[in-house]
Amino acid sequence: MKKIEHIGIAVKDLEVSNNLFGKLFGKPHYKIEEVESEGVRTSFFDIGPNKIELLEATNPESPIAKFLERKGEGVHHIAYAVDDIIAEIKRLKEEGFTVLNETPKKGADNKLVAFLHPKTTNGVLVELCQEIES
Amino acid sequence: MKKIEHIGIAVKDLEVSNNLFGKLFGKPHYKIEEVESEGVRTSFFDIGPNKIELLEATNPESPIAKFLERKGEGVHHIAYAVDDIIAEIKRLKEEGFTVLNETPKKGADNKLVAFLHPKTTNGVLVELCQEIES
Repeated sequence: MKKIEHIGIAVKDLEVSNNLFGKLFGKPHYKIEEVESEGVRTSFFDIGPNKIELLEATNPESPIAKFLERKGEGVHHIAYAVDDIIAEIKRLKEEGFTVLNETPKKGADNKLVAFLHPKTTNGVLVELCQEIES
Repeated sequence: MKKIEHIGIAVKDLEVSNNLFGKLFGKPHYKIEEVESEGVRTSFFDIGPNKIELLEATNPESPIAKFLERKGEGVHHIAYAVDDIIAEIKRLKEEGFTVLNETPKKGADNKLVAFLHPKTTNGVLVELCQEIES
């Protein structure tokens, strides 16, 4: 794994939190993107080599809506950048991790992504992500 | 803020989690450090420009022991690297954040650190950290 690509933070209201995190970082978010298949609207902040992704649910069935109900606002996942997501999925399965997406799926921000179940990663939902070559 | 310096993850048993995260990252932790004043034993993993810090409580009064009781294992804080922690504390107070350490304190890994209360940061405990010049 090459770096922390981003940290995903579940928020109730994207406008309110964009304002809050804009103050925290001293600069505004640089884009908003909706991922309809996941039921989320996201915004992104650049922090040097890393990003913060805020996640707002767009419907009550969204994983983010369920997370907010259960745990409230806070860190939802940590995403690590990888060079070869297929090889990493294979390696991590062999190491005993529960990979939720054996075939990576298209995520926000032009990435192929796969998640590891938090029960095998000390309570932290882990995302692997690989930039899609254009 | 320059980058995500590290993510702090609360764990029940440092040896077990060192083994687990070693498998996750495909390489072992590079150091273990005890911060007696905080009641924690920590280990560090390098992930490119970022680090993961695992935190184990060394006594029942440790903030990590209380966190584990309340929330279980998982992300405890996000630390951002800053150039001038005094200036950042001043800026963030003016922006309305609750700074828990108006005077930065010595943390693990040769850093001056200060925390922002999670109630003002969307449920995420935020650490500012500045490298101590040797």
